[in-house]
Amino acid sequence: MRPGLLGTEIVRVENALGRVIAEGIESTLDVPCFVRPWVDGYSTKAEWTRRASATRPVTLRLAGRLFPEDYPKSTKLGNGEAFYVACGAPLPDGADCVIKAEDARMVGSRVQILKGAKPGQGLSRAGEDIRRGSLALKKGQVIRAQDLGLILALGKREVSVIRKPKLAILSVGDEIVDLDHFDPHRIVNNYAYVISAAASEAGAIPILLGIAPDDPESIAAKLTEGLHLADAVATIGGCSVGAKDFVPDAIAKLGEVIAHGVRIKPGHVAGVGVAGGKPIFMLPGHISSCMMAFYVFVAPTLARLAGVTPGKMLPSIGAKSSVTIEKATTYTFLRLSLKERSGGLLAEPVHGGTNILSSLSRANGFALVPPRRSIRKGQQISVTLFGRLEHASFN
Amino acid sequence: MRPGLLGTEIVRVENALGRVIAEGIESTLDVPCFVRPWVDGYSTKAEWTRRASATRPVTLRLAGRLFPEDYPKSTKLGNGEAFYVACGAPLPDGADCVIKAEDARMVGSRVQILKGAKPGQGLSRAGEDIRRGSLALKKGQVIRAQDLGLILALGKREVSVIRKPKLAILSVGDEIVDLDHFDPHRIVNNYAYVISAAASEAGAIPILLGIAPDDPESIAAKLTEGLHLADAVATIGGCSVGAKDFVPDAIAKLGEVIAHGVRIKPGHVAGVGVAGGKPIFMLPGHISSCMMAFYVFVAPTLARLAGVTPGKMLPSIGAKSSVTIEKATTYTFLRLSLKERSGGLLAEPVHGGTNILSSLSRANGFALVPPRRSIRKGQQISVTLFGRLEHASFN
Repeated sequence: MRPGLLGTEIVRVENALGRVIAEGIESTLDVPCFVRPWVDGYSTKAEWTRRASATRPVTLRLAGRLFPEDYPKSTKLGNGEAFYVACGAPLPDGADCVIKAEDARMVGSRVQILKGAKPGQGLSRAGEDIRRGSLALKKGQVIRAQDLGLILALGKREVSVIRKPKLAILSVGDEIVDLDHFDPHRIVNNYAYVISAAASEAGAIPILLGIAPDDPESIAAKLTEGLHLADAVATIGGCSVGAKDFVPDAIAKLGEVIAHGVRIKPGHVAGVGVAGGKPIFMLPGHISSCMMAFYVFVAPTLARLAGVTPGKMLPSIGAKSSVTIEKATTYTFLRLSLKERSGGLLAEPVHGGTNILSSLSRANGFALVPPRRSIRKGQQISVTLFGRLEHASFN
Repeated sequence: MRPGLLGTEIVRVENALGRVIAEGIESTLDVPCFVRPWVDGYSTKAEWTRRASATRPVTLRLAGRLFPEDYPKSTKLGNGEAFYVACGAPLPDGADCVIKAEDARMVGSRVQILKGAKPGQGLSRAGEDIRRGSLALKKGQVIRAQDLGLILALGKREVSVIRKPKLAILSVGDEIVDLDHFDPHRIVNNYAYVISAAASEAGAIPILLGIAPDDPESIAAKLTEGLHLADAVATIGGCSVGAKDFVPDAIAKLGEVIAHGVRIKPGHVAGVGVAGGKPIFMLPGHISSCMMAFYVFVAPTLARLAGVTPGKMLPSIGAKSSVTIEKATTYTFLRLSLKERSGGLLAEPVHGGTNILSSLSRANGFALVPPRRSIRKGQQISVTLFGRLEHASFN
């Protein structure tokens, strides 16, 4: 099973922040579309001002004032004249430079130029910002504030973006109660909200399917709903080797279990299946294992669906390991807390059982350490952050 | 003028992603609230299993099966017995450990323990995750996915957060046309959308006030509207030294211009005023200058209003300068493009006039270099990213 790109949709440019561009955007015009002053000042012919200085100013007759809204007014520069032009105004015929207002002085109806100018000075060439026919923004680019402005500068009101991937999330277990039935002696369905928020942070739309009891038929019914509503499904719990772990059976009813059991700690009971051409991820019921499986399997899949290079979906940052990590026989999902120190960030492993949610609240991201690889104290490692908000929680 | 903290509001926990916690959250309960198996397996008394091994298993009678939903069922462990317990199930009286299912084997109604256990093994202590009375989350913390789960684990459905700051944005200039009247010969109001999106990325709510003509009365009327609707106002354009730069005059009508002209390049015509106790920021009309003033003056103010340390509102990242930057007499707002290279990120200055929007599309963030400070090629510098989406655009 190979998730392909999702389809595209058209959105208003002002609503496109964070969306992924579906088709490269070529400019159909030059920006600016004509030679344009980019400072406020005096437009004239540069050669007349060549010898000007503060002590020996060159005096020109002020022939008029031009503002951007005067376009397309056509004016002609007479001999020994200058026009005041505001930034963006039309340039008089014959003028070839703009001298900044600070480098000139008005004396009655004349202007003294205090500094010699060169041809082209103070002017934007047509197409200097964006040339007609050039690729202004690339396919696959995530639209940022400045890109949004660029698209608007091309006169576009809408942009074709890749549809956001939808992830359906199902909690499994007789013991789990929904938020409205909170009971400290039961297990509240909070992990679904953690995965839901993490999916939003990774650019997806989460859909909460609620809770299925430990029964293959009920789980299969919910999975069917999820496959109908979403591009991928993630189950939480019910995939261990206990007496009531029925998620793999439920997947087998609808499609195929591709892998169950991975060489990663924590989270070795994670797995993945497929039904109706869509992936179903089995996330373990312990929170650290659950997050491991989300970040190692689900998030990269969501990125691919969204047309984004998986490594670019979430921020990653370089940091020095605060301790030596001994080599292991499996992959290790290292939960890391980042601390700002002079000389850079320090990555400190967070301890606590895999079921300790507060340990993840102390962490900012992770590294996936391959088998038989050790990390020296002080070694520079790349830490993938859990989300786009983590930088605010570095210590 | 010193912007204070904004007020607070109550939001549902599931809608609190990215919000700032207004009051530290103390736990009113132990999580878990009782001693709880955290693996699926066999609960018994550890001392009976002490000598167990795969070759010499210890055989116990299986007295029953317990699941989390059986709570608060009370069961008693008899001599030589074990109970199957699922993760989270109530523990039988007298049991002091749980042996993982993998380390045991069922033989008829008996269970063979293949590995000796220690007291406490496989069990979570009450309060092991969060202790009653402890501070689960701090005031000022930005709520991430895992924090959201933690708040729900405490049985809370709502959380008190600091209100998002509102920034009203006003474009100024006779030459500017709104998006619906795009004309390549005019200047479209796209910078307002850049600042609007940048404000969203910095955690604020942008309010677009539209366009004011170059007339102090009209500008003042729009500013009054902005001051009524928002916590701060940003104007774009109309603050230079040209013939029609009336924003400072308009501010002076309503309150006071505190500073106009800053020692930063680009953007030296930026300024700040205050009216009705609220800040008004004058952003220059050239896009690089405008973004300088937004990131150097507006974004830190929005952070303070939101109760977040200014340096934490936007991500910053360490990178090596690709070139030597000579010292200058003013502060320099250095637009930087980040490139991923082996050995870390490379920060490359982006060139182009201050009015070249596409140059900002090539950049990812900035450094503010103090006067008389030079940067050596290869020197490690801290780059503040323009937003939370920039990591996807590193080259």
